[in-house]
Amino acid sequence: MPGTKPSLPKGTRDFLPQQMVQRQYVINTIKTIFERYGYEPLETPSIEKLDVLSGKYGEEGDNLLFKVLKRGTGLEDLQRGSKEFVVKKQSELVDEALRYDLTVPLSRVIAMHQDKISLPFKRYQIQPVWRADRPQRGRYREFYQCDVDTVGSESMLADAEVIAIINDVLESLGFDKFKIRINNRKILDGILAHAGVDSEKAASVLIAIDKLDKIGIDGVRSEFEKRGLSEDSIKKILTVLEISGAPNEVLSTLSKTISQNATLDEGTDELQQIVNYLSDLGVPQNRCKIDLYLARGLGYYTGPIYETVVEEPKIGSLSGGGRYDHLIGMFLGREIPATGTSFGIERIIDVMAELGMFPVSQTKIAVLVTLFDSSTLGGSLNFTQELRKAGINAEIFLNLAKFKKQLSYANKKGIPFVAIIGPNELIENSVTIKNMKSGEQKTFERRKAVEYLKKQEKVVRC
Amino acid sequence: MPGTKPSLPKGTRDFLPQQMVQRQYVINTIKTIFERYGYEPLETPSIEKLDVLSGKYGEEGDNLLFKVLKRGTGLEDLQRGSKEFVVKKQSELVDEALRYDLTVPLSRVIAMHQDKISLPFKRYQIQPVWRADRPQRGRYREFYQCDVDTVGSESMLADAEVIAIINDVLESLGFDKFKIRINNRKILDGILAHAGVDSEKAASVLIAIDKLDKIGIDGVRSEFEKRGLSEDSIKKILTVLEISGAPNEVLSTLSKTISQNATLDEGTDELQQIVNYLSDLGVPQNRCKIDLYLARGLGYYTGPIYETVVEEPKIGSLSGGGRYDHLIGMFLGREIPATGTSFGIERIIDVMAELGMFPVSQTKIAVLVTLFDSSTLGGSLNFTQELRKAGINAEIFLNLAKFKKQLSYANKKGIPFVAIIGPNELIENSVTIKNMKSGEQKTFERRKAVEYLKKQEKVVRC
Repeated sequence: MPGTKPSLPKGTRDFLPQQMVQRQYVINTIKTIFERYGYEPLETPSIEKLDVLSGKYGEEGDNLLFKVLKRGTGLEDLQRGSKEFVVKKQSELVDEALRYDLTVPLSRVIAMHQDKISLPFKRYQIQPVWRADRPQRGRYREFYQCDVDTVGSESMLADAEVIAIINDVLESLGFDKFKIRINNRKILDGILAHAGVDSEKAASVLIAIDKLDKIGIDGVRSEFEKRGLSEDSIKKILTVLEISGAPNEVLSTLSKTISQNATLDEGTDELQQIVNYLSDLGVPQNRCKIDLYLARGLGYYTGPIYETVVEEPKIGSLSGGGRYDHLIGMFLGREIPATGTSFGIERIIDVMAELGMFPVSQTKIAVLVTLFDSSTLGGSLNFTQELRKAGINAEIFLNLAKFKKQLSYANKKGIPFVAIIGPNELIENSVTIKNMKSGEQKTFERRKAVEYLKKQEKVVRC
Repeated sequence: MPGTKPSLPKGTRDFLPQQMVQRQYVINTIKTIFERYGYEPLETPSIEKLDVLSGKYGEEGDNLLFKVLKRGTGLEDLQRGSKEFVVKKQSELVDEALRYDLTVPLSRVIAMHQDKISLPFKRYQIQPVWRADRPQRGRYREFYQCDVDTVGSESMLADAEVIAIINDVLESLGFDKFKIRINNRKILDGILAHAGVDSEKAASVLIAIDKLDKIGIDGVRSEFEKRGLSEDSIKKILTVLEISGAPNEVLSTLSKTISQNATLDEGTDELQQIVNYLSDLGVPQNRCKIDLYLARGLGYYTGPIYETVVEEPKIGSLSGGGRYDHLIGMFLGREIPATGTSFGIERIIDVMAELGMFPVSQTKIAVLVTLFDSSTLGGSLNFTQELRKAGINAEIFLNLAKFKKQLSYANKKGIPFVAIIGPNELIENSVTIKNMKSGEQKTFERRKAVEYLKKQEKVVRC
């Protein structure tokens, strides 16, 4: 096959070590926090039965499924057009597809493993999904999703913990100027009822409300007008959407503005509980804001919803989620409450790389041990193993090459330290350590060299 | 969709938290050791172009590829047999397939990213692969492979390091009675030349030799006879295969038995170098043995080969690999030397579970903080966050349920400690900790409780 120029499928990527170091840093940070909060890992197969996935993501989603060819259809026998193959139903060729998200597999798992899962089931899942979408900047056909959910609890404490996790994750990754926007679908429903919007229009009115951030209050007004809302309705909605301030203020003003609306009261009561829990959980007060115009698309949310926005630089939302009490039981035929959030880790990784937020070097290797000549080679090998036993990531140069070549290899890979054992060092049981950044070079007693590198290595590693 | 009973595609598995804890333990242990040795992570897409994969795994492999349906073929429009669809070439429907192994993607990466990769390229890759094989016990259609390879070095030090890694990995996982079997394809070639076996028969003779372990020397003899080997050839081969002893002895006896055979001499010289390096790398001498009848299938190996065998209990091989200097350059049209090994992590995980070798509990959660009543709820939340800040994985019970129910939840999940903050504890700023295994219960000053659990937690966590 020499000469064929290999390529990658559209919308897919290789992750070379430099990128992997960054990806692992983000994923490990997130995992650690999920586990701190008592969430446990789940993994599901990349391939799901087509009937498990079909109809769950709307028509658009169905079209974006990557379908896997059935085995033994006879299609494999087709060679250079010598025969033909007639298909009457798609199902003759296909009955499996690649995972499209992590929520439908979670529902399937809940239905299939009831005997092994005790509710509430607090799980996280970080795995790739596939969508046959048109690839564009920041949008891939294969990308990782990262979900954390509590299944089987109606408690607002479950929602509050998810919000606390979002705060911890973004803080740990080094994000600073971000806000967690919170609202409740019940409040939105209450506002629409209060404004007399009939239920057929509700969905499209919510879409308009959700745009307030982007198109401003006048934009939303004209969207309302296009949808044929009365001036009275528009006024009632806009008055409420403009309520702002600290969470407690927003909630009390809202209750004063709209009274005797059971759905809305339920929603404000839920948010009040969340606000109280967040304070007990030590989430800084100014981190969260209640945005009454946050709607988070349509579909399946039933209670609190939340979304993160980085205010500076303006990079859009890094996580989004909420409570969805009617979805997880889809395969069981009964309702199971659930709440959780999804982190946009591909975007987080892209943004952190762009903003230079990765605290780590481009490599996980702390030391390159060089080879001087065949007489000292054994000494270099011994020392390399000493480093490794001490928990230091160490590479040994594999050939007796010129020293300059060995240094340039370390440089190219960004390895921060080089260890040299020449004949003198061997006799004196010492090691010379070169700091590749500063160029400084110092000879240590061997054991001391390990200690020194161990200290430096903490700075180097993520 | 209520009532539909969801199922999994054949040969695929869900990994619930209990299994994930075990899988992560194995994978993290292996990763850590790979990185200690200076290997860095690589990930490639699950989907590859069909022309990258086709013809690389033999006809059998081609048939086992999971093919992904092309977008926009019009096949999607077929509804309930109302139309039909005629296919003349498979390529009208398919041009991508799921990853089949990690070696072909590595070659593709080397060819596509030459500018970004400096040789030697020491990478590890731990990702799932897919094979449309007949599923059976221990054989899945989706399973993880775990490869570690050095690309671009002819040095035997690269081979020796891979063997040292195998030793470290299996020791770290708790395997004890295992041996690393080593041989060299050049030695085998030399033996066959010495015995006058002509080159057409060589491959099938090697297959027979490889069975010595299973069918014994008499079995191998009759296999040789079946293949029409002369009595003289058979005698010459068997005499050599029976050479045993410590590595150095085997090599010197072999050289004495077969002299003036350049290929064999090259092979023994390579193994001698490896044996010397292994000693410098501190790999215990009795861990490795040179097995002259180890052939490791056919195909692509060109130099040293190695395989691990656990002697007690008899569970077959857990890793296998060797040098393959003609493969990695397939897309470049020039040879690039390479050596490495693959760990059978699915088998390792299965075996460790069966033998009860996992040192970890069934959960990663160390503490369940219970809720007493609404007056103490805030105190419980505070304390939970204190634990998490101290790096302890802590779950809070989400409802004001009966205490018995909360305890039984902890029990079911295998959480080792339960923290209780009732009205007394709240006043005294204390916490009562219950050890779920022993049933013991003790009240600590709050800060002390965190310290106590931190100490216990080290025992609990993996």
